[in-house]
Amino acid sequence: MYKKLKEKVCNANTHLHALGLAPFTWGNVSEVDRSLNVFAIKPSGVPYDSLTPEKIVIVSLGDGSVVEGDYNPSSDTPTHYYLYKKFDNLNAVVHTHSVNASSFAQAGRDIPAYGTTHADFSYTAVPCTRALTADEVNTEYELNTGKVIVEHFEDNNLDVESTPAVLVHSHAPFAFGKNAEDAVHNAAVLEIVAEMAMKTEIIEKSTTQIDKYLSDKHYFRKHGKDAYYGQK
Amino acid sequence: MYKKLKEKVCNANTHLHALGLAPFTWGNVSEVDRSLNVFAIKPSGVPYDSLTPEKIVIVSLGDGSVVEGDYNPSSDTPTHYYLYKKFDNLNAVVHTHSVNASSFAQAGRDIPAYGTTHADFSYTAVPCTRALTADEVNTEYELNTGKVIVEHFEDNNLDVESTPAVLVHSHAPFAFGKNAEDAVHNAAVLEIVAEMAMKTEIIEKSTTQIDKYLSDKHYFRKHGKDAYYGQK
Amino acid sequence: MYKKLKEKVCNANTHLHALGLAPFTWGNVSEVDRSLNVFAIKPSGVPYDSLTPEKIVIVSLGDGSVVEGDYNPSSDTPTHYYLYKKFDNLNAVVHTHSVNASSFAQAGRDIPAYGTTHADFSYTAVPCTRALTADEVNTEYELNTGKVIVEHFEDNNLDVESTPAVLVHSHAPFAFGKNAEDAVHNAAVLEIVAEMAMKTEIIEKSTTQIDKYLSDKHYFRKHGKDAYYGQK
Amino acid sequence: MYKKLKEKVCNANTHLHALGLAPFTWGNVSEVDRSLNVFAIKPSGVPYDSLTPEKIVIVSLGDGSVVEGDYNPSSDTPTHYYLYKKFDNLNAVVHTHSVNASSFAQAGRDIPAYGTTHADFSYTAVPCTRALTADEVNTEYELNTGKVIVEHFEDNNLDVESTPAVLVHSHAPFAFGKNAEDAVHNAAVLEIVAEMAMKTEIIEKSTTQIDKYLSDKHYFRKHGKDAYYGQK
Repeated sequence: MYKKLKEKVCNANTHLHALGLAPFTWGNVSEVDRSLNVFAIKPSGVPYDSLTPEKIVIVSLGDGSVVEGDYNPSSDTPTHYYLYKKFDNLNAVVHTHSVNASSFAQAGRDIPAYGTTHADFSYTAVPCTRALTADEVNTEYELNTGKVIVEHFEDNNLDVESTPAVLVHSHAPFAFGKNAEDAVHNAAVLEIVAEMAMKTEIIEKSTTQIDKYLSDKHYFRKHGKDAYYGQK
Repeated sequence: MYKKLKEKVCNANTHLHALGLAPFTWGNVSEVDRSLNVFAIKPSGVPYDSLTPEKIVIVSLGDGSVVEGDYNPSSDTPTHYYLYKKFDNLNAVVHTHSVNASSFAQAGRDIPAYGTTHADFSYTAVPCTRALTADEVNTEYELNTGKVIVEHFEDNNLDVESTPAVLVHSHAPFAFGKNAEDAVHNAAVLEIVAEMAMKTEIIEKSTTQIDKYLSDKHYFRKHGKDAYYGQK
Repeated sequence: MYKKLKEKVCNANTHLHALGLAPFTWGNVSEVDRSLNVFAIKPSGVPYDSLTPEKIVIVSLGDGSVVEGDYNPSSDTPTHYYLYKKFDNLNAVVHTHSVNASSFAQAGRDIPAYGTTHADFSYTAVPCTRALTADEVNTEYELNTGKVIVEHFEDNNLDVESTPAVLVHSHAPFAFGKNAEDAVHNAAVLEIVAEMAMKTEIIEKSTTQIDKYLSDKHYFRKHGKDAYYGQK
Repeated sequence: MYKKLKEKVCNANTHLHALGLAPFTWGNVSEVDRSLNVFAIKPSGVPYDSLTPEKIVIVSLGDGSVVEGDYNPSSDTPTHYYLYKKFDNLNAVVHTHSVNASSFAQAGRDIPAYGTTHADFSYTAVPCTRALTADEVNTEYELNTGKVIVEHFEDNNLDVESTPAVLVHSHAPFAFGKNAEDAVHNAAVLEIVAEMAMKTEIIEKSTTQIDKYLSDKHYFRKHGKDAYYGQK
């Protein structure tokens, strides 16, 4: 029943590692199937080069428990779970510790939208959440990581489609997507955009964000009903 | 009729991707054939590893319409079109979002000529255009991108042979060449030159540009009738 | 008698080189066998691609002399020797000149713990020792390098399990591990953590270290009896 | 007569390119045979992947003219020639535009000796020459590049054995060696040392150079009659 979903999630995890975005066992990809009320996610701490579809874990979207699988799911599973529960239009989640994006997270800063490379990818700056409190860390840490992300998106009227990535303060990025492979793509673009933003500030510290009209132009050239980039 | 031109443009696009200058589907290469009054360009959004000469699109130099091809041409086609129309000695154009050059574009700064690596490549600093206005972005954006480049070259008496690359403000670089492969080469050198310029400023913020006599020596050692670099 | 130990140490040295952490002949890995009262270490100056288990040198934990092997052991052997003598729970040592960690060592600075990537790896900042005195350098330099590391750990109540790496002032890092391969892993993580710390400060110079409660959470999620990361 | 010398120089040039230190046709390696009163050098502008021993050019150490070869020698040949004439103990020269070392050259700064990685390689900071004058550039530029290097070494009592690399102001590095392959090795180490020096200053701007006694220890551990690094 879950065969195809497991294959997609296995392939996306393998691709994430091949892109250099998840060294060692760091990082995980999941994808939801809302008709089956489950999501598939990487097993915890398993090296990418030994990953097979059979090792992918199926988790209930009802209560977050394991539905099928011989392995423990990623320790970040409750974060994925909470995000899928709260964001109806979210289909896939990627977590990495990619260097440039994580450095912005460690600095506690949004990644500013400095150019069209960013605007092609995200309608907004890549937001950085507030730090979790001691209570939030000490009890249900991973679930609360999801709650802090959702809080930030709700407080700032953000949407996971037009804001396809977020930085968790002092931690690292999460990227979103239409499916597992799309979320991996967004995690990869995020890392390039973070590198460019850091270098832009090295070159000119006082750089301001891209003009709204140029950002809109690029974002909607690639996204939404009037997009004209690519083939039909 | 266009077979050879398509092959050259296909190979140059593939090479651009192999050099790491155009991740995903970002970037495009075109080359003009003025005797046939057309240019060949990459189709929009097509992954480089599935690119074949048959997918390359032939565009009229008369009115910018598609002459041959089953795919939509690059969304940046009107920029290429305008540049070929206005620069008689321009034979090939490459657009990338390469990280270091794009970071200078995002900072809105020319890439200063700090050394002989730059002078071997370009007779001048790599210029950065003004930002496009809201009107220019909202109407015929890609054509206006070409117009802003041409405006900058005309206002500053620049020539695409001696200034083989330009940065579009808040956006990314365009490189020029004698043919598609030469333009790809220039796009690659541009990225190295941009990295060196950024690092030169990290090492010594107050570095001044290269002495004119040294820049001239290196530029004319490789370019023009008195060049003595390489084999005859 | 030492066949298996030599194989492990040979493989770990080869892996260190393959990870790009030890260009040319720089860097060395050792592992101790306390039941046999010896440790195995890379021969000095031998290129990694010609390394075989037979070339690995066996050194006495009693007096630091060579027990078996046709080659001179690494010139850093007395450092490894002293560390094994003084740290009962130390099983493996890696020395590299990896670029980012060595740059912190050259700057004479600890690597601050700025985020969860660091906390997953080390319970503390990565400490930097004091500089060695002229006397310490001129007499028994490599042994004194070990002594300065031990002095720093004792004075600051550090332990090689919870602080799996150290920087020697003006020099380079040493990493520790449960076995040779684990120490190589720690040397690799150290290099990523150093790069992130440098970039975090580029992005925001005034960044403060990670909250203790978040650091504890991540460290003990992966280490110790209550760890729940990975598979049982 | 020159077969072996040509093979060595061909191999060293190919290795230089494989190490990423000489993209495109940038960079050249030569080695002298003083008994034959010639040196062998790369032909100008020939791509590395088509380089064969037959294409290597033999140049007279007497008057700098071509003794054997169908190709023009590197345009930098007079620089190599002058260095071999003036430095009796110089056996091989490498010129690159490697990014980090060239950035120091563009900034007009010596590469400070910040740590043992540098001291293992060079007894001194890597010096940067003065800028050439307009006259020196306009007449016999490449020969004068050699003269400015020699002037700097003589004025500062430097020797190409203990100072195995130099930066030419606004230009790029030259590295020296006991043979072509050794000079390529030094060019590679130089690039790492330059990257570390730049990053050391990013981490701590006020870093001072390594203590003389530590630098001496490391330098003489690897060089000279009392060296004890490596195998006998």
